[in-house]
Amino acid sequence: MSELGLGVESARTADGIALLVDGEVEGDGDASASGIEAIDHAGEGDLTFIGDARHARFWATSSASVALVTRGIDLGDWSADGRAVIRVKDADQAMIQVLELVESAAADIVERPEPGIDPDARIDPTATIEGDVAIGPFAVIGARCRIGSGSVVESGVRIYSDATIGSDVHLHAGVVIRERCVIGDRSILHGGVVIGSDGFGYRPDPSGKGTRKIPHLGNVEIGTDVEIGANSCIDRGKFGPTIIGEGSKIDNLCQIGHNAKIGRCVLISGLTGIAGSTSVGDGTLIGGGVGLSDHLRIGAGCQIAGRSGVMNDIPDGETWAGMPAKEARIAMKEQAVIRRLPEWSKRLKELLDPR
Amino acid sequence: MSELGLGVESARTADGIALLVDGEVEGDGDASASGIEAIDHAGEGDLTFIGDARHARFWATSSASVALVTRGIDLGDWSADGRAVIRVKDADQAMIQVLELVESAAADIVERPEPGIDPDARIDPTATIEGDVAIGPFAVIGARCRIGSGSVVESGVRIYSDATIGSDVHLHAGVVIRERCVIGDRSILHGGVVIGSDGFGYRPDPSGKGTRKIPHLGNVEIGTDVEIGANSCIDRGKFGPTIIGEGSKIDNLCQIGHNAKIGRCVLISGLTGIAGSTSVGDGTLIGGGVGLSDHLRIGAGCQIAGRSGVMNDIPDGETWAGMPAKEARIAMKEQAVIRRLPEWSKRLKELLDPR
Amino acid sequence: MSELGLGVESARTADGIALLVDGEVEGDGDASASGIEAIDHAGEGDLTFIGDARHARFWATSSASVALVTRGIDLGDWSADGRAVIRVKDADQAMIQVLELVESAAADIVERPEPGIDPDARIDPTATIEGDVAIGPFAVIGARCRIGSGSVVESGVRIYSDATIGSDVHLHAGVVIRERCVIGDRSILHGGVVIGSDGFGYRPDPSGKGTRKIPHLGNVEIGTDVEIGANSCIDRGKFGPTIIGEGSKIDNLCQIGHNAKIGRCVLISGLTGIAGSTSVGDGTLIGGGVGLSDHLRIGAGCQIAGRSGVMNDIPDGETWAGMPAKEARIAMKEQAVIRRLPEWSKRLKELLDPR
Repeated sequence: MSELGLGVESARTADGIALLVDGEVEGDGDASASGIEAIDHAGEGDLTFIGDARHARFWATSSASVALVTRGIDLGDWSADGRAVIRVKDADQAMIQVLELVESAAADIVERPEPGIDPDARIDPTATIEGDVAIGPFAVIGARCRIGSGSVVESGVRIYSDATIGSDVHLHAGVVIRERCVIGDRSILHGGVVIGSDGFGYRPDPSGKGTRKIPHLGNVEIGTDVEIGANSCIDRGKFGPTIIGEGSKIDNLCQIGHNAKIGRCVLISGLTGIAGSTSVGDGTLIGGGVGLSDHLRIGAGCQIAGRSGVMNDIPDGETWAGMPAKEARIAMKEQAVIRRLPEWSKRLKELLDPR
Repeated sequence: MSELGLGVESARTADGIALLVDGEVEGDGDASASGIEAIDHAGEGDLTFIGDARHARFWATSSASVALVTRGIDLGDWSADGRAVIRVKDADQAMIQVLELVESAAADIVERPEPGIDPDARIDPTATIEGDVAIGPFAVIGARCRIGSGSVVESGVRIYSDATIGSDVHLHAGVVIRERCVIGDRSILHGGVVIGSDGFGYRPDPSGKGTRKIPHLGNVEIGTDVEIGANSCIDRGKFGPTIIGEGSKIDNLCQIGHNAKIGRCVLISGLTGIAGSTSVGDGTLIGGGVGLSDHLRIGAGCQIAGRSGVMNDIPDGETWAGMPAKEARIAMKEQAVIRRLPEWSKRLKELLDPR
Repeated sequence: MSELGLGVESARTADGIALLVDGEVEGDGDASASGIEAIDHAGEGDLTFIGDARHARFWATSSASVALVTRGIDLGDWSADGRAVIRVKDADQAMIQVLELVESAAADIVERPEPGIDPDARIDPTATIEGDVAIGPFAVIGARCRIGSGSVVESGVRIYSDATIGSDVHLHAGVVIRERCVIGDRSILHGGVVIGSDGFGYRPDPSGKGTRKIPHLGNVEIGTDVEIGANSCIDRGKFGPTIIGEGSKIDNLCQIGHNAKIGRCVLISGLTGIAGSTSVGDGTLIGGGVGLSDHLRIGAGCQIAGRSGVMNDIPDGETWAGMPAKEARIAMKEQAVIRRLPEWSKRLKELLDPR
């Protein structure tokens, strides 16, 4: 349960919340909420939200106090005794509005360190730290690095030499940024992210036994407004950069290989791996657990279903799925036939079995 | 090879070990073992174990000195010259008994820091540290945190503000726990685990270009006796908690999304991802490399085979497999037909090909 | 763009580079390059490389200044005005040669700390640190550890007690090495790697409710010349070691289970999981996103395609693919038939549908 703290006391009543989200109250306008929860977990004193019929059936028997409900959804009979519904255009969007209001009003709900450099941070004398930067204890910042104004470097972060961190960046605890990498303004890197580790590149050893490491002399360039989830890894280029375009969001435990080029506003869900030198166009959405082979060209505005294994280029705007991945409508047709195979198997055997 | 050190010297002879595991000796009761190894790697002076016929055939030619063997397993002819077999009800269980005895007798086999707060740990003055807590160097503990008695916080751990850590918890090096998260008594978090990072949630930007981050104001609540493997990540709820129930065990490199609810005594193997708001019932077993879509309800007592991609709710007690996942007995039937397709393909083409 | 800095000024002209890679110049031998880029991203002043016909068609319209080109590849008509082509036996190999020359000549392109122990490192007095070791700030080295000569321990690394680190090892920031583990000479562990965390092993609790942890008393033994990618995890054995053989290379975000035995010169790509007690033979190549079940024997010289799910032993030298994995030539035949199923589905229904 998250505490509602919208800055004004009235914001905790149905009438008050309705004003903030441009909604109409049904029931008791004085009904008040101090927490937020999903309808199937909400109790007395909670604000909840109902955006479809599947969840609407819980409202009558729920003990939640206030609900944001998309206009037109039928809630059946319910008791308005100390309870209220706020009708809005889109309950999901209204809830996000409430979350944003809570976040901006309640400064202490998200920890944000005061600007200042901790005496136990280790900062190379040749590094440039701009104004209003917060650097936590046991962070290490290497030679010739630059940290832009308003950025936060949490405890234990390690930035190798010659890296450039933009303004208003937030590097969470344990982030590692290797030499010469670049992080754009307002980007957020969650705990344990590793940027600029050497790519996975080897060549046969001249001795004929085993392999020899190929030097990785490139870097990683991350655009503005990028967010990278906990423990994700982005390898440096063999030469030239690995690129993450502005506004792209990468979930936890993703792997981006050397010299990959990810466009703008690409969304990549958790446990996805993108192999070396593959490019992904602007606005493409990639589900969780996906793998993209190396040296592919994935178009702009594509959608790739979760757990797809992509081994071919994808033209702009297409939706792909499956392993090996193909256009989703084809993959679905294949699955539809495969689902029938067990019931057809006896007859298939009679027809086809050479034995 | 792990050193046997059971506290008493006799424990290293076949006769001594037999007493500890309630077994009967065949061969030389004075045969002694100082290490433990699997039968295919064991050498002279090793204790090994044989729980099935597949491994039994190695015994005659092995140089291992002592073996725990499940009663009734035929070992063929073997030389008892300085060697012994200990017959037990279940060799695997007996070996675990031996491991537990070794662990409890040999304090130095697993490092466990003495209680005390390292002078180079950074602890906020408003944090509450109960008795007999060990906190290593360069650990950072935020404002208003509470650490229960007997817990161990290894070096470099970062706990953000307002987090609550129970009693007898062990947080290994490099763990990151974000603000307001809760860790239950006796839980173990292995190296590099990140608890409470922001969930992967965005909404279209009002500008029509790209996305805007949805605030994540919830937390993570981890029950008692939970174990979480190295570099796994559990995201905080959008509002309300992401929950891991008591006694659940999560392997390395797993990802649990925002507002997921994992029941009690759930086992989740490595590289598995569970997307946002999905719930998993008590006692369910999930194999490695599995993906669960968002907003699913997975029942109690289910089994999900490794590498399944689950896109539907699963009723209590069912066993599912495949991609897309379905009941395992159906998935197996499909695979049985698919295996025949290559040999049937020529005849299928003749029958069906419109060309 | 990586700066070319080959130690001698002439190395930046086509004639100079040709001498280094044993090639012949076509066009302007004075054409010079100061950066390196792939042909589809290269601009004026860049050195690029062309190893196949697919990339050859970019050369005529590229503004890249110099290209390493495999002999015999047809480039069509192109302007030699300030530009040059260097013909070599193998353009990819020649580019690696250039990268190796740049790396060795330009000491500052890869950060390498000076030998010396940082005053803010915490080293147990019983640890043995050999000569010319570099240990960064906030690193913690436990009791009775040994660090071989020439090794680098970056900031924030944690080494638990009784671990042995060879010579010329590089442990990047945030690496965690648990008690009694062994790392061979010249091995490289990238940021966030966790070695020796407890394996995922439980047994039913005698109470009949939930599970009890099985002690993990073994360790991890990593051979010489091994490289392990960022945030990968290798669990310690239940007893005896988990083994990574010499010369093996493991990519980012991989999981190696307890008591696995990985042979020599094995390559394992990102997001791959290998379950407990599975062995992999020398020289086997494993693609990205692969899963190997527990207790398997994978032969030497095998190839396992990306995203395979392997549930059976694989004999030496075989190539496998698919989920469930089987010999690749069979998996490909199955896929070939599956691809035809949608167009055959109507006729199949007529033939087979019992309804």
